[in-house]
Amino acid sequence: MARVVIAGMGFGGLRAAKGLAGSGLEVLLLDQYNYHLFHPLLYQVATASVEQENIAYPIRAIFRSWRNVRFRLARVEGVDLGTNRVLTDSGPIDYDYLVLSVGSASEFYGLDAVRRIAHTLKDMDDAVDLRNQILSCFERASIEPDPAKRAALLTFVIVGGGPTGVEFSGALAELVRHALRKDYPELERDSVRIVLVEALPNLLPLFSNSLREYARHRLERLGVKVRTGQPVVEARPDGVVLRDGTEIAAYTLFWAAGVRAAPLTETLPGAKDRVGRLIVRPDLRHPDYDNVFVIGDMAHVEQGGKVLPMLAPVAMQEGAYVAAAILAQESGREMAPFRYRDKGQMAIIGRNAAVAHAFGIQMRGFLAWLAWLALHLYYLIGFRNRLFALLNWAYAYLLLDPKLRLITRPLPKPGSEGNEEVVKGGERR
Amino acid sequence: MARVVIAGMGFGGLRAAKGLAGSGLEVLLLDQYNYHLFHPLLYQVATASVEQENIAYPIRAIFRSWRNVRFRLARVEGVDLGTNRVLTDSGPIDYDYLVLSVGSASEFYGLDAVRRIAHTLKDMDDAVDLRNQILSCFERASIEPDPAKRAALLTFVIVGGGPTGVEFSGALAELVRHALRKDYPELERDSVRIVLVEALPNLLPLFSNSLREYARHRLERLGVKVRTGQPVVEARPDGVVLRDGTEIAAYTLFWAAGVRAAPLTETLPGAKDRVGRLIVRPDLRHPDYDNVFVIGDMAHVEQGGKVLPMLAPVAMQEGAYVAAAILAQESGREMAPFRYRDKGQMAIIGRNAAVAHAFGIQMRGFLAWLAWLALHLYYLIGFRNRLFALLNWAYAYLLLDPKLRLITRPLPKPGSEGNEEVVKGGERR
Repeated sequence: MARVVIAGMGFGGLRAAKGLAGSGLEVLLLDQYNYHLFHPLLYQVATASVEQENIAYPIRAIFRSWRNVRFRLARVEGVDLGTNRVLTDSGPIDYDYLVLSVGSASEFYGLDAVRRIAHTLKDMDDAVDLRNQILSCFERASIEPDPAKRAALLTFVIVGGGPTGVEFSGALAELVRHALRKDYPELERDSVRIVLVEALPNLLPLFSNSLREYARHRLERLGVKVRTGQPVVEARPDGVVLRDGTEIAAYTLFWAAGVRAAPLTETLPGAKDRVGRLIVRPDLRHPDYDNVFVIGDMAHVEQGGKVLPMLAPVAMQEGAYVAAAILAQESGREMAPFRYRDKGQMAIIGRNAAVAHAFGIQMRGFLAWLAWLALHLYYLIGFRNRLFALLNWAYAYLLLDPKLRLITRPLPKPGSEGNEEVVKGGERR
Repeated sequence: MARVVIAGMGFGGLRAAKGLAGSGLEVLLLDQYNYHLFHPLLYQVATASVEQENIAYPIRAIFRSWRNVRFRLARVEGVDLGTNRVLTDSGPIDYDYLVLSVGSASEFYGLDAVRRIAHTLKDMDDAVDLRNQILSCFERASIEPDPAKRAALLTFVIVGGGPTGVEFSGALAELVRHALRKDYPELERDSVRIVLVEALPNLLPLFSNSLREYARHRLERLGVKVRTGQPVVEARPDGVVLRDGTEIAAYTLFWAAGVRAAPLTETLPGAKDRVGRLIVRPDLRHPDYDNVFVIGDMAHVEQGGKVLPMLAPVAMQEGAYVAAAILAQESGREMAPFRYRDKGQMAIIGRNAAVAHAFGIQMRGFLAWLAWLALHLYYLIGFRNRLFALLNWAYAYLLLDPKLRLITRPLPKPGSEGNEEVVKGGERR
């Protein structure tokens, strides 16, 4: 019985695993976490809008009805392509087929200070760290006598005008308006600044001009200051500097400005693109190894002269394709090359507005928000998560305040000379 | 306007704060966490039965409708009783009245090895650590080739036969039976051992003999091995030793065998009892300082020749009394001494059984379980938590599997010589 090893249980790996569940093949799933994470909602954990447990689902629970699928908690450290072995922190694992889908990491464009200082949003710990950071800044500001320091504690700089930066900025603005302002009556009413910085001339590069304009307008109405065409050139624990020389004093920097393929990709032979993705064959195989597939954010796939973006729907379709391709090969059938069907994109801006384009239709405002809600609930795995996420949102929508504002790790002592400590959150890994 | 400082937002402090909310006094609340924690359900977080957020409630959100109540995130480090100042990690704070209610800590009876090795369940981080530990042991066992090591990874020793130990043992047994057995088909069916060790001859010392017998019987039916009359005399990372010489090989030791007043109590002048509680006056004031009240697990209060136990209802009634006493003193009225009204006690044993005695009535089984459920839901603060906790439990009850089994902090590498690392969980503070 051929053994398929799938490394990484994100959207791509999960879909590939589902495609092989119940088949005659032995399937071994690897991930460094024991749960699948619904990444697109991490920003809601970071803004205290949804519980951690509602966007994560234990992998063993997903697959336990299928006897041919097993899971192993392991971090992939390399691949010995010559001997068909995955190298992990819990020992080497042999494979007949390998699906690599370990995703992406943040790209800092050589800005080492940003790498050290900034918060990112790649996994659950990041989201909890960022939430703790935001709430801790409010706590510190509430007892900070120096007005300049207080202002810096209440200034939140978000770098990156893609969906993550836009969605996070909107959600943070609403958290402040509907909850934190009431929680901290000792702070002046308009003392919180949320600044969204984007190096390109526009937010949301993958959307049309009118939707971009709409998104910017909505964010500004929520009180977010939008600075486009301005890359960050320097970061310090107490602020950032933009290219035009503007200095923004802030103890919180959230970096959503760049993504590159996970470092594992670098260890593989074969040509990579500018953001580290391996250039795969049209059937998603490694250029030199027929039994190794690379999918999702690790893979560079062109279609109609354009490179497919690093998005969940791309990874999911690639995962489904790879499962079918392995089954086809096992039964001696041919597969046509992978083709991505673009079903559209969305971004949410605050509590009841979004932008979306799908099947040639553009939507914005409340209708787009409803579409966003429906789609995300549909994709959240499992009945329980769907139900609870819906209730959470219904509650948050009706009452504007889900009361999840817990600081779950010890704070640095506010008495100490602690600006840097606050910025660094808990222990950053 | 007199200023009341309440240090510690557990059951006692919270109730005192509520009693003073809306009064003419200035009330300042202090806690090292920004949330009130419903301690009696921590064991459910540790057994992946309920989300963290459902048993914690942000303190600022509780009090934001009252203008006379403020909150400050601060850890109390001492009290300067002479100058009426609380010393905190965010600076000193003056008071006119002080309510000390910072609770308790684990008591290890001089067993330093236990202190280093054992998990406890005093705060949210403890609960998350313990959950991660249990799930990590299952993950490691699933790939451990050595049968002896595998058995030790799947042996869970709980020390302490009070409500916490009993409730945790029952919940863990049900987690294993209804969820983990299915999640880990690679493990042999009966390879998990849960051992509940108690130094006294009986479980649940505060209950009647028939209820104790019932509890023991129910636990044994769930597969828990109960060892009474056996104190732990030694602990190692890979096991514990009982007084009769029995060695139990286990990588997980949960210590619920002893509680003593929080260390802050030691820094106060005045006589203490055997478990470090300050012996207060009948009106809960410090023996030497009229404006300082000590309540909850920090206070030794006798009534009818018996010392009141360290339980939430005692702390809550003391908190309410202290609020009334301060208001009385401010308006020049006299207060009768504090009197505790015992409304009974309960402990839950697994999914649909409990023991309870209340108002002279003894209950056990499903009826007691329903009573337990109703009472705990009633006391869980706030509509949201109540609603969500109810839904969680309804879900868990109907489907036996709330799918919360997330390992939320990085594991020690299973490849390393890691018994000790596993035992120590993440970073223990």
